[in-house]
Amino acid sequence: MMNDIKGYVFDLDGTIFRGNQLIEGADSTINFLRSIGKKIVFLSNRGNISRQRCKEKLLKVGIEAHTDEIILSSSVAASFLKNAYDQSKVWILGEKDLEDELRLAQVHLAKHPEEADWLLISLHETLTYHDLNHAFKAVASGARIIATNADKYVPTEQGNSIDVAGMIGAIESSTGRRVEIVVGKPSWLMAEAVLNQLGLSAEECLVVGDSMESDIAFGKMFGFKTTLVLTGSTDRAMATGHNYEADFTLESIKELKFLIEEGLR
Amino acid sequence: MMNDIKGYVFDLDGTIFRGNQLIEGADSTINFLRSIGKKIVFLSNRGNISRQRCKEKLLKVGIEAHTDEIILSSSVAASFLKNAYDQSKVWILGEKDLEDELRLAQVHLAKHPEEADWLLISLHETLTYHDLNHAFKAVASGARIIATNADKYVPTEQGNSIDVAGMIGAIESSTGRRVEIVVGKPSWLMAEAVLNQLGLSAEECLVVGDSMESDIAFGKMFGFKTTLVLTGSTDRAMATGHNYEADFTLESIKELKFLIEEGLR
Repeated sequence: MMNDIKGYVFDLDGTIFRGNQLIEGADSTINFLRSIGKKIVFLSNRGNISRQRCKEKLLKVGIEAHTDEIILSSSVAASFLKNAYDQSKVWILGEKDLEDELRLAQVHLAKHPEEADWLLISLHETLTYHDLNHAFKAVASGARIIATNADKYVPTEQGNSIDVAGMIGAIESSTGRRVEIVVGKPSWLMAEAVLNQLGLSAEECLVVGDSMESDIAFGKMFGFKTTLVLTGSTDRAMATGHNYEADFTLESIKELKFLIEEGLR
Repeated sequence: MMNDIKGYVFDLDGTIFRGNQLIEGADSTINFLRSIGKKIVFLSNRGNISRQRCKEKLLKVGIEAHTDEIILSSSVAASFLKNAYDQSKVWILGEKDLEDELRLAQVHLAKHPEEADWLLISLHETLTYHDLNHAFKAVASGARIIATNADKYVPTEQGNSIDVAGMIGAIESSTGRRVEIVVGKPSWLMAEAVLNQLGLSAEECLVVGDSMESDIAFGKMFGFKTTLVLTGSTDRAMATGHNYEADFTLESIKELKFLIEEGLR
């Protein structure tokens, strides 16, 4: 089956990277797939980096990628807002890179929180009370809430850290309003972005990731083949007991190369 | 009836102060009450200032008060944690003044978030992602959650700003754990603190405040007499339609003095 796959969809954190460290074999696997003519996209719920930044980060560890091959919740949020709400003004609770993606997509940015039609919430690791208060004012003045993702915590080199769910909770609890759209996996927006980029049908593609919910359930939901890698948030015990399972479970992305090579022999 | 009152319980923000400005007549009313031998306490849900700071703030606008006459959710949280959880270690998501109150009450402060038994959440106007993340780590490592208050927004000179509900929401949403104790009005902890300080029964005391929930419902719940003032969060229209009402509704604290003087004649 593995050899019928034409497109590979790689999660980033926990699959390609752990923190800023490359996971062993990620580079050789990607390069090998390219050498045998496979299509590749990198698909991440990261809303706090731009595709450009991500491209540089990949290049640093020896993985070449075209910006179009990188699909992040930041860039998907930007295209969604541009396509579906072209007239709307957006206020950001997030970082510079997210703003860069919105500017690239020509989304209208609100100059003051009070004039915003949407508040876009993302991970914001340099957040202050001031930022939180601006986001509060946007929603208290009528802005609707969209989030790049809704992960509770992000794994870092210093253990788990509070993620976008925390920022969403702060705004929901203080305004009584609820988030309306979560862009990141397992959303249809991310699936659509992947299939548009690859120009393939879902069953011709393999989603490779470390999260049962964001990668495996996501893949199943849209008809992709799925591979769980155990280099991130999920260990073998956590991989069972769901009402779905991965088509393949591998110790790491490194094994993927061996598996395909074997099939080619 | 007003002249049978022996103890006066004044809310602060919206009743005595608006921002840093004294509400006209607050000083003369307080001084008049003292001159005719009435007992007074100031009762506020503020968790981000200490009684000492509050005393200085009152003095600046011409109101003398003893520290014991000032009851804040910061000081009540401190005594509660000391009395009920003497062995527990506490991590604070809040400001220096709150820490001062905990130190005064000899509450054990955790040195690292991971060792905390309780996370105490309060308004934190200099909050950063780092602070939020420490609070997250405390709860992710098992700390229970207590909050000085759960107000959604705090009125400031620049309009409403995000309050403790936002900070609570951030931690609840990212950890899946819920706050267990909210110290501020309308809690029994605040009523107990008032009655202990005044040495009176509730029906001998009048609660004066600008909030239907934090002051009027609070007063009713514990058998206090109640007076709504319209100098804060509630206007005359908002004062109706509840299943309780204030015994008196006054334009401001200034009128309270006239009312009592009239009764004395």
